Amino acid sequence: MSVRRSSVEALLTSQELDREVLVKGWVRTRRGNKYVQFIAVNDGSTINNLQVVADAEKFPEETLKDVTTGSCIAVRGKLVASQGKGQATEVQALEIEVLGKADPETYPLQKKGHSLEFLREIAHLRPRTNTFGAVLRLRHALAFGIHQYFNDRGFFYVHTPIITGSDAEGAGQMFRVTTLPDQNPPLNDAGQVDYSEDFFGKATNLTVSGQLEGELAAMALGQVYTFGPTFRAENSNTARHLAEFWMIEPEMAFYDLQDNMDLAEDFLRYLVRYALEKCPADLQFLNDQYDKELLNRLRFVIDNDFQRLTYTEAVDILKTAKQKFEFPVDWGTDLQSEHERYLVEKHFKKPVILTNYPKDIKAFYMKLDEDGRTVRAMDVLFPGIGEIIGGSQREEDLEKLRGRMQEMHVPEDELWWYLDTRRFGAAPHSGFGLGFERLVLFVTGMTNIRDVIPFPRFPKNAEF
Amino acid sequence: MSVRRSSVEALLTSQELDREVLVKGWVRTRRGNKYVQFIAVNDGSTINNLQVVADAEKFPEETLKDVTTGSCIAVRGKLVASQGKGQATEVQALEIEVLGKADPETYPLQKKGHSLEFLREIAHLRPRTNTFGAVLRLRHALAFGIHQYFNDRGFFYVHTPIITGSDAEGAGQMFRVTTLPDQNPPLNDAGQVDYSEDFFGKATNLTVSGQLEGELAAMALGQVYTFGPTFRAENSNTARHLAEFWMIEPEMAFYDLQDNMDLAEDFLRYLVRYALEKCPADLQFLNDQYDKELLNRLRFVIDNDFQRLTYTEAVDILKTAKQKFEFPVDWGTDLQSEHERYLVEKHFKKPVILTNYPKDIKAFYMKLDEDGRTVRAMDVLFPGIGEIIGGSQREEDLEKLRGRMQEMHVPEDELWWYLDTRRFGAAPHSGFGLGFERLVLFVTGMTNIRDVIPFPRFPKNAEF
Repeated sequence: MSVRRSSVEALLTSQELDREVLVKGWVRTRRGNKYVQFIAVNDGSTINNLQVVADAEKFPEETLKDVTTGSCIAVRGKLVASQGKGQATEVQALEIEVLGKADPETYPLQKKGHSLEFLREIAHLRPRTNTFGAVLRLRHALAFGIHQYFNDRGFFYVHTPIITGSDAEGAGQMFRVTTLPDQNPPLNDAGQVDYSEDFFGKATNLTVSGQLEGELAAMALGQVYTFGPTFRAENSNTARHLAEFWMIEPEMAFYDLQDNMDLAEDFLRYLVRYALEKCPADLQFLNDQYDKELLNRLRFVIDNDFQRLTYTEAVDILKTAKQKFEFPVDWGTDLQSEHERYLVEKHFKKPVILTNYPKDIKAFYMKLDEDGRTVRAMDVLFPGIGEIIGGSQREEDLEKLRGRMQEMHVPEDELWWYLDTRRFGAAPHSGFGLGFERLVLFVTGMTNIRDVIPFPRFPKNAEF
Repeated sequence: MSVRRSSVEALLTSQELDREVLVKGWVRTRRGNKYVQFIAVNDGSTINNLQVVADAEKFPEETLKDVTTGSCIAVRGKLVASQGKGQATEVQALEIEVLGKADPETYPLQKKGHSLEFLREIAHLRPRTNTFGAVLRLRHALAFGIHQYFNDRGFFYVHTPIITGSDAEGAGQMFRVTTLPDQNPPLNDAGQVDYSEDFFGKATNLTVSGQLEGELAAMALGQVYTFGPTFRAENSNTARHLAEFWMIEPEMAFYDLQDNMDLAEDFLRYLVRYALEKCPADLQFLNDQYDKELLNRLRFVIDNDFQRLTYTEAVDILKTAKQKFEFPVDWGTDLQSEHERYLVEKHFKKPVILTNYPKDIKAFYMKLDEDGRTVRAMDVLFPGIGEIIGGSQREEDLEKLRGRMQEMHVPEDELWWYLDTRRFGAAPHSGFGLGFERLVLFVTGMTNIRDVIPFPRFPKNAEF
């Protein structure tokens, strides 16, 4: 088989017909009759299969007995215009080699239509299904789109640390990282574990956010972003939470809250447009298979400006809403998912950016408004997802920031380096965090966050 | 200041002169005389500073007293052709506002020429120096170049897990990840820590490699790559080791060792060319400041094919070398850094790819050669760096793989999912790992790996 291998995607879209080609991939189905067999081959390059036509005179049934669903084959043949519906080209087989069998008795993906729950149990094989192939190609496209967007706009990608000695941000419970013995660790005089003997000479955890380090970089490089794994040790067994997930956190010197909102909105619309342009076949499949409103919802985000209003205005709307809520709405309390969804899905019927939240329900680093009661926070709320982005203008005034840290019991000595950015050459700046899996959920229309990351981590599960 | 802000990079390369502009950034230096002051402003967009000219009649000294090194300023002014050497444009100041002061008594980056050791202590401020600005911009360019390279070639980016329940690969010592109490954890009947009560219901660690999960994805999507953090808990206090570093691991179905070498060589040359194209000013600075051979070395990689030879051939060369080595060379032992450097820097004087290493010094998953003694491994060796890429064709034969796992005491039951890829639709496949920081070291010419990652993690250090 000395021809050079082509991808299924390349062959399906090729204009050069009647030439000899070589394709390798996995058999999705084989069907036919005693005269001819049709083998659907997929190599991951596209959701579409290449039809290989095997003439029974050349390929009697016994030569094809191992060409079963899931097996891996190499096919040399002639690329021709397809007679059948649904594809422009197909391959008339000249030679078929089975590279790897898949015993029909034991291969778990034998039949179609497995439940998503079942596929979660075999996450090592589920990328071979149409659904997860589509999700993973979209996940790739969105990740690349993110890098492309920032690179084109002069942002620099910074790798903030995963292992951190600080647990000051308070964004959530943390995982401890250690090399101390798991029993009888060294103790100090006070009878506590002596972390000075641990690998890093102090207690360390997995990061919950790269923001604070991102701010350090923004105060030198101007516009930066992170894109890395973050962790939460909350015991949340829901369809919306993961213990390990990826976050994108841009941070920009000289941006105020308005600039920050403009960027977040432009960024999200760019990414949705990018997915529609790069992965039309995958999106069409997910739309048809899971959620007939998916493509409409995506186009809606592109076509409509996001509604911007303050938290205070949102509370007024919610208080006079005809809808009954499970949780009462009062100025000063955090909004619940039901409130956010009412605003987005019922009241405005478009994405919403809420701003200027009460300071007591937001993080210490957010810039105080003039009234001293609210901060320059912004949450972007999406239909079906709720909060997809959370951000703020940062407090750049050293004394105000220290005041907020004292009020919220954030230890200054742990964050001396963070305070230094306000001591030396402080600049107004802003940033936000986008949960990558929330974005992939929205764009794919999947409903469980465990289905949009290859190998999900959640309580009692770290398989594969 | 109602004009729209421009970046320093944009103003330095602008052809539109004699217009009003607004620039914001940090003061690198201020100098001058009683008639005129020259303020060098940098905003991170480029290593070059914008010269702001402040006429003393308009800006008497007392109005500029806070315009000191490290302070952050906003300048409205007129963009004009520069009279001075070294820049095409400069700004005649109309208005200068100090956004954030930097007290000359306490700002640590007051004077130029700090040692790299000192700057490591203030890693939160070092991105503001020319050196680290250049390194971080190059780091960004290389990261983006990596995504661009793979995206253009139909590879999919997969996020492999950071927290892993398996410690089977044996690539190095691991960090434990846990939420159990650090004293008196629950014990099982055997008196050992009962990890079934830990967050994930089992003992978990930080990953040393995403390869095995990458292989799962490649057996579905065809061509994939990872780009994420990896960890080693070795107590290595050297200029070449980090406890937390980033790795790129492409994995390709249907690639043999030859294809793998071709990809690795093309990839590295692409990245070096990309850095030269995108960051000429940063590279020129590093060349002039630290290493006069840097640019020559980079061009050399682009201009010369890599030398390919087997481990066995390399041992023959080393055994007959005139040079005295500290460690003896014998077929079957791993090559030391001195041997690799001799081959690259003295013997061939170009990058080298060594292949077909003895199986006993390589990992269990590498494909056995026909002789049963060597495996289809490949190491790419670079001048000054040594091994920059390690990879192999993978053993796709289930029984041979199980045999190797038994020989090397790799537990089968922990890797049942990995073995499934050889049970169902196995395909020949290959891949490699590139240590990102090793690449950044090579391209920047820096000599300590702690200087090419923003916040290095190493024994007794997890600051910032």
